[in-house]
Amino acid sequence: MANPTAAMLVIGDEILSGRTRDANMHYLAGELTTHGIDLKEVRVVSDDAAAIVSAVQTLSAGYDHVFTSGGIGPTHDDITADCMAQAFGCSIDVRADARALLEAHYKNSGLELNEARLRMARIPDGAALIDNPVSTAPGFTIENVHVMAGVPSVFRAMVASVLPTLTGGAPLLSQSLRIMRGEGDIAEILGKVAADFADLSIGCYPFQKDGAYGANVVVRGSEGARVDAAITRLADELEL
Amino acid sequence: MANPTAAMLVIGDEILSGRTRDANMHYLAGELTTHGIDLKEVRVVSDDAAAIVSAVQTLSAGYDHVFTSGGIGPTHDDITADCMAQAFGCSIDVRADARALLEAHYKNSGLELNEARLRMARIPDGAALIDNPVSTAPGFTIENVHVMAGVPSVFRAMVASVLPTLTGGAPLLSQSLRIMRGEGDIAEILGKVAADFADLSIGCYPFQKDGAYGANVVVRGSEGARVDAAITRLADELEL
Repeated sequence: MANPTAAMLVIGDEILSGRTRDANMHYLAGELTTHGIDLKEVRVVSDDAAAIVSAVQTLSAGYDHVFTSGGIGPTHDDITADCMAQAFGCSIDVRADARALLEAHYKNSGLELNEARLRMARIPDGAALIDNPVSTAPGFTIENVHVMAGVPSVFRAMVASVLPTLTGGAPLLSQSLRIMRGEGDIAEILGKVAADFADLSIGCYPFQKDGAYGANVVVRGSEGARVDAAITRLADELEL
Repeated sequence: MANPTAAMLVIGDEILSGRTRDANMHYLAGELTTHGIDLKEVRVVSDDAAAIVSAVQTLSAGYDHVFTSGGIGPTHDDITADCMAQAFGCSIDVRADARALLEAHYKNSGLELNEARLRMARIPDGAALIDNPVSTAPGFTIENVHVMAGVPSVFRAMVASVLPTLTGGAPLLSQSLRIMRGEGDIAEILGKVAADFADLSIGCYPFQKDGAYGANVVVRGSEGARVDAAITRLADELEL
């Protein structure tokens, strides 16, 4: 059976302006691969309601799961929760369960649970909360969309809360060969082996080291024996 | 006058599987900001012809410029050039100008210009070549799409070849305030100032340091005096 598919939506002006280098995409990609969910597409959009709503509707319809990061804090530029309600035609307001979490947290911290912080308890009707062990303010799952924070430590904690609840497939296995020859010298053999192992993904990633050309050939698939067979065949044909 | 808009398309299984952490998006974002071109959207897709063709058609229609990275090497998984020809209904073959570049390069290097390496001279009809001072094999511009390599050093060299040929707008300026208070404590003031300076983008990026909460407030705009005014107003209202 094919693995479930996923897309990611990264939300934030700071990524598109070059101020911040996104770290969540790479992290999520690795976690999904381990969990047997195939990440097929990522989109990055700015803090713009129309762009967020349109992207999440398209991705939600196209994939089994969508993971979002960014825009769920207390400030005016945090509009993700409202966009999700709009995208799925739900109402949204401060919700009692999320408010209770924040009340307990701020009571302990000595900080005031003011109107701005209460924005973080705005959760669309019908959404399920995602636990945030780092800073309490929850994420949420609405339809097939998992809405998480952009701060990397919080994003990771929320991914850890969500992933065990999702049914994964076979983890994607990979093996690689490091070959100290130019890509162009091994391309013909690679192409033949890739055609014979059409159920696997075989990628070739060139590098230069000390002035010499090399390439990492990576074989990916969910069946260990097939990956082994392709690697053995490549090593034979390339006379490694 | 509004700045030109742009989108980026990152192509490669290795990004979506988590094997490789993309570096080109962050680099391009910074270069475009400096050049006065507004990066509005990024998409990452796998080495899948249908996904590449569909994404580039959508982005080409929606933005003034599209920048792609990845999939223009000599191996079987390098399908970007053919996908671009398909997306724009052009024919594609080994082109004399690109072949001449490769012939000169490989003659000097002592490596064979074999069939695989000649794939890198496959350029759609009507496309303009993009200079590659790092490893010779060229990128190309077709319609409003600039097709570049995925290897970061080559991608950067190609961006440096292309950007001076594009008309930019006003560079996006930014100033920031580092505030050692929780986001929730400054959100109300931020929201008011953001409403009064609706022509600017004001973002708030929280952090934790030594157990204390802080936030970087970033004001972005193309007019220096307006950015100054917003920063002064924020500093006053926040009593910094």
